[in-house]
Amino acid sequence: MREQLAALLEEKQGEYVSGEQLSRILNVSRTAVWKHIRKLEEEGYKIEASRKLGYRLVDSPDQITLTSLLPRLTTVRLGRSVKLFDEVDSTQNIAQKLAEEGAPEGTLILAERQLSGRGRMGRSWLSPKGRGVWMSMILRPTIPLPYTPQLTLLTAVALCRALRRLTGLEIGIKWPNDLLIDGRKISGILLESSAEEERLRHVIVGVGISVNLDKQHYTEDMLDRVISLKMAAGITFDRSEIIAGFLAEFEAVYTLYEQEGFAPVRSLWEALSVSLHKPCKLTTPQGIMEGIPVGLADSGALLLKLEDGDTVPVFSAEMG
Amino acid sequence: MREQLAALLEEKQGEYVSGEQLSRILNVSRTAVWKHIRKLEEEGYKIEASRKLGYRLVDSPDQITLTSLLPRLTTVRLGRSVKLFDEVDSTQNIAQKLAEEGAPEGTLILAERQLSGRGRMGRSWLSPKGRGVWMSMILRPTIPLPYTPQLTLLTAVALCRALRRLTGLEIGIKWPNDLLIDGRKISGILLESSAEEERLRHVIVGVGISVNLDKQHYTEDMLDRVISLKMAAGITFDRSEIIAGFLAEFEAVYTLYEQEGFAPVRSLWEALSVSLHKPCKLTTPQGIMEGIPVGLADSGALLLKLEDGDTVPVFSAEMG
Repeated sequence: MREQLAALLEEKQGEYVSGEQLSRILNVSRTAVWKHIRKLEEEGYKIEASRKLGYRLVDSPDQITLTSLLPRLTTVRLGRSVKLFDEVDSTQNIAQKLAEEGAPEGTLILAERQLSGRGRMGRSWLSPKGRGVWMSMILRPTIPLPYTPQLTLLTAVALCRALRRLTGLEIGIKWPNDLLIDGRKISGILLESSAEEERLRHVIVGVGISVNLDKQHYTEDMLDRVISLKMAAGITFDRSEIIAGFLAEFEAVYTLYEQEGFAPVRSLWEALSVSLHKPCKLTTPQGIMEGIPVGLADSGALLLKLEDGDTVPVFSAEMG
Repeated sequence: MREQLAALLEEKQGEYVSGEQLSRILNVSRTAVWKHIRKLEEEGYKIEASRKLGYRLVDSPDQITLTSLLPRLTTVRLGRSVKLFDEVDSTQNIAQKLAEEGAPEGTLILAERQLSGRGRMGRSWLSPKGRGVWMSMILRPTIPLPYTPQLTLLTAVALCRALRRLTGLEIGIKWPNDLLIDGRKISGILLESSAEEERLRHVIVGVGISVNLDKQHYTEDMLDRVISLKMAAGITFDRSEIIAGFLAEFEAVYTLYEQEGFAPVRSLWEALSVSLHKPCKLTTPQGIMEGIPVGLADSGALLLKLEDGDTVPVFSAEMG
């Protein structure tokens, strides 16, 4: 029904169709038409309603398809297997299942919409239909387990570099892996790993990028903390291009990391970071710590200079 | 049928029963009786066969039951939930499933027999019925991910101390976590972990102890490398007592670790180790390294002193 309604509006290419006409064609009440219009809006359609003229389609969510994505991919190791879903609970869950079944490194899972997208620290992640990049990628790195946190920093570096290049926006990294524009978050990264002793079995790199979300996708109090690429740049972005650009950058940085270790990744991270050399408060499992972040340790931990002059590594914390 | 046969033999308390009599009571051929006798032997029964007199039961495998185990447990945090299985593919797989479903810290999974018990480096682990401790325990530590290797060393310390106390045998730790008697392995430890970013979600501590295995449980070429507690001490051990003793020791060392960190665990490990201060060869994912292990790093890595005098940390390797 909703698909039919969307098709009818799209057919008219931005012209108004009266509610009466729609209700006749679809054989439902005008109230039902209105309810379906609201649903379409929730899915990312932008529809203008006029009491006199009816409804007209202003904007429809774009779709990621293999046809749009595959020709753009320039990677040789990543994204050679791509699974597209319309709606999933979480791409991380699907990736984890596939990884346990033996899916190869670089397998990519994409969804138009996540019903229960997951973020760091058990938080939920807003993933409305057709407006963002909601993806998970399977890695099978040969690094020892203690180096896993380096991969989360590597992911932030690759995503930040790709998005800066593709959008021209001034994007910085907040420790460890949030990307910010003017202090507002545009993407989230979540790495989940599984290990046998000190050997990583797999790492699932989860990335959420708020690409074409509009103000109305957010609640009022979210708008202080988050922003989309579209809101920041004033234009709509092609999500397939963003995915391809990120994968290309990721493959380059990941290969560099395999060849030269963490040092070059650390330099890139430190150069893009907006968290260094400013006093901050860290909420750790052991309590609140205050100090000045001065860089990254070899382990990937944040080096925090305390008031007493000591510098300590912090593995897990929330920067407030 | 096999259970009936075992019951018949046990009834006779070590007296011979003729194959003819058994075949009559069970209503099967004498060849079938013989085949079932062989199966019972595989399950851990020790049966003497005489062409003239028939069969007599010399020894039957003991059983771990909640009645035998629970009164022996002195722990307050570990083993408060115990799941006993007769036969499983691997206790690790069951534990992992339970952990993902939210099972609490200390949940213990025990099996009389594992069909595909797993060891380190993807190896299989021999787990014949009724002869060993084949167990997995769920932990939910609040340590950061990079410290996970410390837990595998901690497990070796707890198991070594418990077995030395319970058996009086001279047992040492081979890096990282094999327990040896005179160079022959009596137990294996396998830790599998799952993490979200730098936060551990759960760790499954897998422990296999070759308690009452006899020579015939092993192949000829295994006998150079492995031994059971029974073979080493000349007596049969109560497996429930061993489980309870290990849990008590683990809880003590784990609590110490939570309170004082890795330092005391490192000291205990170094004291029990048979791998330190002797030249050795390590097979790492990057190739073979030679040197002298001099101790453990804070990270849990082995500190290897190379020929050129440099000391390097080794995370993942096989000591050959």
